[in-house]
Amino acid sequence: MNPTKLSWKPGAVLALGLAVGAVQAHDRARTPVNIPDIPGYLTLKCDLHIHTVFSDGSVWPDIRAEEAWREGLDAIAITDHIEYQPHKRDLPTAHNRSYEIAKPRGDSLEVAVIRGSEITRQMPPGHLNAVFITDAVSLDTPEWRDALKTASDQGAFIFWNHPGWTGQQPDGVARWYPEHDELLNQGRLHGIEVVNSREYYPEAHRWCLDKKLTMLSNSDIHNPLNLDYDVHAGDHRPITLVFATERSPGAIKEALFARRTAVYGGNRLVGEETWVRPLFERSLTIRNPQVAIRGKGRVYVQIHNHSDLRYELQRAGTVAGLSFPATVSLPPGRTALLEVRGTDADANGVRQIGLPYTVSNVLVEPEQGLQVTLDIQVTFSP
Amino acid sequence: MNPTKLSWKPGAVLALGLAVGAVQAHDRARTPVNIPDIPGYLTLKCDLHIHTVFSDGSVWPDIRAEEAWREGLDAIAITDHIEYQPHKRDLPTAHNRSYEIAKPRGDSLEVAVIRGSEITRQMPPGHLNAVFITDAVSLDTPEWRDALKTASDQGAFIFWNHPGWTGQQPDGVARWYPEHDELLNQGRLHGIEVVNSREYYPEAHRWCLDKKLTMLSNSDIHNPLNLDYDVHAGDHRPITLVFATERSPGAIKEALFARRTAVYGGNRLVGEETWVRPLFERSLTIRNPQVAIRGKGRVYVQIHNHSDLRYELQRAGTVAGLSFPATVSLPPGRTALLEVRGTDADANGVRQIGLPYTVSNVLVEPEQGLQVTLDIQVTFSP
Amino acid sequence: MNPTKLSWKPGAVLALGLAVGAVQAHDRARTPVNIPDIPGYLTLKCDLHIHTVFSDGSVWPDIRAEEAWREGLDAIAITDHIEYQPHKRDLPTAHNRSYEIAKPRGDSLEVAVIRGSEITRQMPPGHLNAVFITDAVSLDTPEWRDALKTASDQGAFIFWNHPGWTGQQPDGVARWYPEHDELLNQGRLHGIEVVNSREYYPEAHRWCLDKKLTMLSNSDIHNPLNLDYDVHAGDHRPITLVFATERSPGAIKEALFARRTAVYGGNRLVGEETWVRPLFERSLTIRNPQVAIRGKGRVYVQIHNHSDLRYELQRAGTVAGLSFPATVSLPPGRTALLEVRGTDADANGVRQIGLPYTVSNVLVEPEQGLQVTLDIQVTFSP
Amino acid sequence: MNPTKLSWKPGAVLALGLAVGAVQAHDRARTPVNIPDIPGYLTLKCDLHIHTVFSDGSVWPDIRAEEAWREGLDAIAITDHIEYQPHKRDLPTAHNRSYEIAKPRGDSLEVAVIRGSEITRQMPPGHLNAVFITDAVSLDTPEWRDALKTASDQGAFIFWNHPGWTGQQPDGVARWYPEHDELLNQGRLHGIEVVNSREYYPEAHRWCLDKKLTMLSNSDIHNPLNLDYDVHAGDHRPITLVFATERSPGAIKEALFARRTAVYGGNRLVGEETWVRPLFERSLTIRNPQVAIRGKGRVYVQIHNHSDLRYELQRAGTVAGLSFPATVSLPPGRTALLEVRGTDADANGVRQIGLPYTVSNVLVEPEQGLQVTLDIQVTFSP
Repeated sequence: MNPTKLSWKPGAVLALGLAVGAVQAHDRARTPVNIPDIPGYLTLKCDLHIHTVFSDGSVWPDIRAEEAWREGLDAIAITDHIEYQPHKRDLPTAHNRSYEIAKPRGDSLEVAVIRGSEITRQMPPGHLNAVFITDAVSLDTPEWRDALKTASDQGAFIFWNHPGWTGQQPDGVARWYPEHDELLNQGRLHGIEVVNSREYYPEAHRWCLDKKLTMLSNSDIHNPLNLDYDVHAGDHRPITLVFATERSPGAIKEALFARRTAVYGGNRLVGEETWVRPLFERSLTIRNPQVAIRGKGRVYVQIHNHSDLRYELQRAGTVAGLSFPATVSLPPGRTALLEVRGTDADANGVRQIGLPYTVSNVLVEPEQGLQVTLDIQVTFSP
Repeated sequence: MNPTKLSWKPGAVLALGLAVGAVQAHDRARTPVNIPDIPGYLTLKCDLHIHTVFSDGSVWPDIRAEEAWREGLDAIAITDHIEYQPHKRDLPTAHNRSYEIAKPRGDSLEVAVIRGSEITRQMPPGHLNAVFITDAVSLDTPEWRDALKTASDQGAFIFWNHPGWTGQQPDGVARWYPEHDELLNQGRLHGIEVVNSREYYPEAHRWCLDKKLTMLSNSDIHNPLNLDYDVHAGDHRPITLVFATERSPGAIKEALFARRTAVYGGNRLVGEETWVRPLFERSLTIRNPQVAIRGKGRVYVQIHNHSDLRYELQRAGTVAGLSFPATVSLPPGRTALLEVRGTDADANGVRQIGLPYTVSNVLVEPEQGLQVTLDIQVTFSP
Repeated sequence: MNPTKLSWKPGAVLALGLAVGAVQAHDRARTPVNIPDIPGYLTLKCDLHIHTVFSDGSVWPDIRAEEAWREGLDAIAITDHIEYQPHKRDLPTAHNRSYEIAKPRGDSLEVAVIRGSEITRQMPPGHLNAVFITDAVSLDTPEWRDALKTASDQGAFIFWNHPGWTGQQPDGVARWYPEHDELLNQGRLHGIEVVNSREYYPEAHRWCLDKKLTMLSNSDIHNPLNLDYDVHAGDHRPITLVFATERSPGAIKEALFARRTAVYGGNRLVGEETWVRPLFERSLTIRNPQVAIRGKGRVYVQIHNHSDLRYELQRAGTVAGLSFPATVSLPPGRTALLEVRGTDADANGVRQIGLPYTVSNVLVEPEQGLQVTLDIQVTFSP
Repeated sequence: MNPTKLSWKPGAVLALGLAVGAVQAHDRARTPVNIPDIPGYLTLKCDLHIHTVFSDGSVWPDIRAEEAWREGLDAIAITDHIEYQPHKRDLPTAHNRSYEIAKPRGDSLEVAVIRGSEITRQMPPGHLNAVFITDAVSLDTPEWRDALKTASDQGAFIFWNHPGWTGQQPDGVARWYPEHDELLNQGRLHGIEVVNSREYYPEAHRWCLDKKLTMLSNSDIHNPLNLDYDVHAGDHRPITLVFATERSPGAIKEALFARRTAVYGGNRLVGEETWVRPLFERSLTIRNPQVAIRGKGRVYVQIHNHSDLRYELQRAGTVAGLSFPATVSLPPGRTALLEVRGTDADANGVRQIGLPYTVSNVLVEPEQGLQVTLDIQVTFSP
């Protein structure tokens, strides 16, 4: 008997319609990540640190492309550990296989799958991911320097993973070692994870700004995604936002080396002002930017937030003749009200006004939110 | 370097608390399946048809125990295909391994993991699961009769999977073959899947009643569970309810052979009246069973549904002197109102009344809902 | 003591930020109704049948504007009963007051509030709404003919409410009476509710097509909205979609008389093909309209549904050389997959193909779904 | 024509079943508040501060009973302002009417409706609620002292509302005035709102402990409830938990005077240890209190939380030979895992162990969480 001739029960993932006697439907569908493009670039949603059964992960590699498609991602890198395969008694070491298995599923769904590996060493230098490699097997070397040189020679983009991970930094504080200087000077360290899974590393954030490294935000997922992230309920894995000239692996690689990224973890954006300012600005539409206030009257400015983030704003200044809220919360996908009142009963005329706020969950530096103004035109009359 | 000495990044599944700089929390938690126990028996929630990477599934076996614990199950059987391993280029055939890997996770979480296999043949006899086997390797025989004899000799409970599966019955209609008679007569066929994944097979339902076979309801899951079932949103995999004397694998086995099961698929219960009647009755509490009606007045009987099912009731008779709703929907975990009105302005006295209904989603036969009465005491006065 | 000088505790609806010691936040926010505009017209979301405490409703009138703003509506009509005020012991009859109270809240939120009344008579002619009236008091006449003449003289748009309501048609079947012919001939009947609350009246649907009447879909809400509609969970009140040249009461009135409406109730659209076809077409984007199929291979066409409706498609024909699904469900706000397979191993060349489907929940006639094609370009190769 | 003879369209709230052509169902149902009873007492869920259209609220009074029933409450007090009726142009002052209208709806649903009034004065003494009054009209006096004396003479339970409300305390800090001493000494002040709407007042919490006043937690709701509380999504109004000997207004009154209450606001419980300790303890079941640890091995203690609160625990001590988590979050209605590890490879024997924790969201004093132990029996073996 030849099993391949049998009619196998297909994985339920392939079923779209309802069978005879079907109990209940379920969608195989993609939910978009609503983060806008910015002038000149597409905002691609990427997760560049992912495990499968081929190292210490728990799913067959093709599932990673399926999960990414459903969650609205554009690209993933499969980055199994080179040095660690707890399943190897059953699943012999084969460093390139997880990529090779995941890629066709990604192709069929139009999710880019990028070949990568996690070079997994004691600190220093700790764990580093090399993505856009051409052969993972050649990274299996006794010396970590050799592995990184090989990756670099393959044209890889290399970044330091979870620098404050308590497994290697018991106090959770990221530390920079001479080995990292060595790699940086050799051009073999291009970025750092500012966010890994649920963790944000302010030290890494600072280093990226100071040393001109690329910021990354990755899941490092081992489990099936839904065991760790309540994606159905607005939760999402951490995502590296890549500002690319087109939707292609090559464009992602170019953008990574050019440091055109931002970090999207939890309800937080982290990145250089160049990138996060247009993300914020393009997320919002003021529905009625022209308002009229009569004396000490009140108007509501309606602000629609197109994005998936809830922006949290703190008032950052005053405006003569107006009072406006100390805090504003802009819920995702909805229109909020900003109550503005006149404070001068005799005011008259038309003024362009920028209401000054700090966006506390969009960080341009550690503990420094983005400074913005909400721009309206007010016609005052007594 | 010895990888086992490294401090590995643990799978996020192990993290309970919030790390330094943590972005957001996530629960590793179990959600109970609210289906009551019945007199004399515990109602154990079981899924006896599950795949892993060791055949054509997509997750490492331990994940199956984790998923089951989180979804509130008491027991699962790992039943990889004997004859079909599409991953075997990478993962060599090892029929017992998926059970051996899943079991320790189940033990740590107190979910029973049962050794099983899917004997996967052309129709007839189609696909059959043998659970409570002692060795899966010995089922790998050229002849299906040998495989089933071996399973039977190991004391296995054997059931026919998805008898109306369109992969083997293109019209979705289950058909009984002489080979099934042969197995039944040999005592090598003990049950049938009345529900498999999203499908219900009325023919199988009928056969179980007529031929005294055990009814099963299993997921046949291949993907990570959450890709196929929106468990977060009230969806659930199909579950075999096993009425057992205690919470142990032995008690489950005894109950299966004794045909003490019911089928829970979607929002439907299927089973012999002996079992589904107490399930229904113990699901409900009438909060105010004693009501007073004055003339043609109206009262509300409050019915609380403790279970996860939404019971759908259709009026199945009349009661002199009372009007009551044609349909009643009892939402899960909530208290609904049943509006009862007097129809006789001069009624007087106290009466015990059973309001007759058919529960359309609790099937005691194909297309035959359970007949029930909602029992109240009415004090009438003019 | 003058109460107006006190600092009153404001209704919580006005609170945007968090007070000192605040326990938890809550949004006052508007959720958009995602139904696209169509060529030449804005698609305004309107509910033209609403009650308040001034007749038999349960909320102060301003709440109706607040609810409408939050649910994403553009306009509402307040239509309290002329002939029925069960609260009048406490709240003396004042037919214009509910409009006058609701309007300022609508103005502050940019929701149009339209003056209306429900002329509430026995069948025939039953209950009729007059909207865009100028004075409700004058409709309080002994004879219904006088009330309708007065409304008409005020320029009102007049429509028949819930024609199959079991309160006036015990079998739920709408019936057309000579009195309706009389009104139609006098130009005093312009539309009918095809949907009222949870009910759809196929007879009314047919009459609107045959007699050239405007189709309406209104809530007839009496309770606070959230007691009857789970708006938080994707439920919505019935909405009259008005295709207007601008977002203004005048444009709504013009469109109503011009019969440029469609009905949005539950997960169903009802309307003339002229209007519902572009609604459907503009709801969808085929992400990859150009696909390549090799022999009997398979591709996935990705269809994004921008709207809030789940479109349910049934295959309505065949295409030589291709197989495609019998049913397709397009979930709201998500991207679904349409699996297309080649059936001719030797096919070659490029073809423009329209996959024929019926949209079963977009009704152009009673029981007649909209016929559509999903247009793709397929490059075949052996 | 007599309107009362017409067949009126009933408020949708009365519809249970599906009408002909129905679009979609909706439940009129009660969701229980899962907070356990404590030894000797029922835990009744009460909201004793509620407004209607008869003062500055927005709903007809019967809606308040309906909302309370649906949200799982046992009792409410209608407490319209005596001194403030912004609707009185339309709705003439009638202080007892809101209670009289709400009560029959409460009776039909078995929700107790208690007669009350808000005596609404400048600070001091600010706003005070008198509940269990017999006549609200008599509280309409020029002098607040007279109003409170009258209420007291009627046997009322009197409490101070929102003592830190920014409308009367611009900095949000509650202040105690000589007038409050006067009332306390006269026996005319029995309790204070420790929580009002989304606000918690630590000063009021302290005063209740020191001055032996009853703690209350009320909504002060003006809007329809669902506009301010996302009750569908796990949000709830603030609730005064009353520990009563039976489910009756009299028993509630007795318990209020006896200070047997606790405060349930947001995800927080506030109260004297006497009451909140059994609430916490009865909320939890340790599923496997007897565990076995081998050497430095690990076990999972499974803790089920029956309540609607998410309990947040902080480790508050050490236990020789064991490590256990620094923080534990116990999600509502689910079973969490507590990972316990041995730290002594040679440990042996059986020990009863209490793992010490502070429950940070159960406050026995301002900023002082409840001290608890999680009690397990550990069998150690090398």
